[in-house]
Amino acid sequence: MENYIYGKNNVIELLKDGSRSISKVILMKGQNNNAKIAQIINLARQRGIIFQFQPKEKFYQFGEISHQGVIAYTPPIKFTDFNEFINKKSEDNKYKKIIILDGIEDPHNFGSIIRTCVCAGFDAVIFPSRRNATVNSTVEKSSAGAVNRIDLIMVNSLTAIIDRLKDNDFWIIATDINAKDNYYDIDYCNMNFAIVLGAEKDGISTAILKKSDFKIKIPMLNNFNSLNVANAASIVIYEALKQTIQKTGNVV
Amino acid sequence: MENYIYGKNNVIELLKDGSRSISKVILMKGQNNNAKIAQIINLARQRGIIFQFQPKEKFYQFGEISHQGVIAYTPPIKFTDFNEFINKKSEDNKYKKIIILDGIEDPHNFGSIIRTCVCAGFDAVIFPSRRNATVNSTVEKSSAGAVNRIDLIMVNSLTAIIDRLKDNDFWIIATDINAKDNYYDIDYCNMNFAIVLGAEKDGISTAILKKSDFKIKIPMLNNFNSLNVANAASIVIYEALKQTIQKTGNVV
Repeated sequence: MENYIYGKNNVIELLKDGSRSISKVILMKGQNNNAKIAQIINLARQRGIIFQFQPKEKFYQFGEISHQGVIAYTPPIKFTDFNEFINKKSEDNKYKKIIILDGIEDPHNFGSIIRTCVCAGFDAVIFPSRRNATVNSTVEKSSAGAVNRIDLIMVNSLTAIIDRLKDNDFWIIATDINAKDNYYDIDYCNMNFAIVLGAEKDGISTAILKKSDFKIKIPMLNNFNSLNVANAASIVIYEALKQTIQKTGNVV
Repeated sequence: MENYIYGKNNVIELLKDGSRSISKVILMKGQNNNAKIAQIINLARQRGIIFQFQPKEKFYQFGEISHQGVIAYTPPIKFTDFNEFINKKSEDNKYKKIIILDGIEDPHNFGSIIRTCVCAGFDAVIFPSRRNATVNSTVEKSSAGAVNRIDLIMVNSLTAIIDRLKDNDFWIIATDINAKDNYYDIDYCNMNFAIVLGAEKDGISTAILKKSDFKIKIPMLNNFNSLNVANAASIVIYEALKQTIQKTGNVV
């Protein structure tokens, strides 16, 4: 499925960015005199990208999003095959860091987690083909383009993949509100690991909890056990990065 | 200004929650046969909350939000006066932790930061009356109700307030992408502090940077300097909480 980016400012940023390929831009007829439309046309010309004026009926398919009469089509996000990822792993000597999402429904959270993973140098995000947001335009936008800079691995069965990861020398770390250990009690260095994050409401499924090597929680005060899942992800991901930086002495 | 919560599931959760008062619920005429509407009416009856069926024209004022014909009005969020907060401070002996937002435009980020502050036991969120999202229904929803569990302080001038904080024995910690120190190089214990977070695009204003006692950055890899501001906030906020827990030995 082809993705799209919508809205004048978003499309201008996309055209300026240059790192993401664009199939074509469509503009709603009758807005030639707008400065931003002129800028979009200019940028598209410079990059040799097709642009077309289309009647407003063409935009009905996008529903209620605020496209402002501007849509840029982008090629579908490329997923990585799990086996390909595992084989790539064995080619170099670095420990791998993975995030596994067990049913994240909100596309903003999904995109935001991918973004944090790229900032922190994680290697892949694994998510199930069902019960999870798909990688759509909202995810791409929330990720600030990060969807193209990390291995995204969509799988049919998380439990099967977790078995495969364990076979391949990965440790499985589950976030669980009932865990005894806090997230900073774990040593994230010197091992391949996958951190599992659960759905916004229900957390991680029991089958996956059972397969986990570590269970960790994020302490919460005020009887307010309600961290947003993308924020929770950032806290754990950065604890892992911090430990790596401190242990290896690498200055970032 | 009165706030409102919209959508069937959101209003059901609000009615079940009980911690937030509700002025009234309005329902769009003609949807009597819906199970969720029946549940909303039941819950409203149990709590003695007024509910009214209104014609669809009444809902036009809410624009394009997906209200699904259900709106619950809630009393306005109560703000705390800065002086009141400072005086309260001097009454007890605990160190205070504050977040200052310098122009956060996205209401989801604003709400999400408030939520993390409550989870981590922070005392207040200070934000300017201009150049910042106001506390509206989206903020309240993204905060998961946290807006009612922390001091929210709206001020006209952040620089003036920062001077007042310094006069009152607070240390000012600015997040700045060009800082030398990483966020975990600071000792957050044994002092009152305020962490300043900048706008999504522009960061913290120069005037505020100059007044800061510490500047910290979050290390980012892959040349991808693009953490979402709410995620960045969570990372720093939880480093401070973690240090406090580790130093005081309090188990949470």
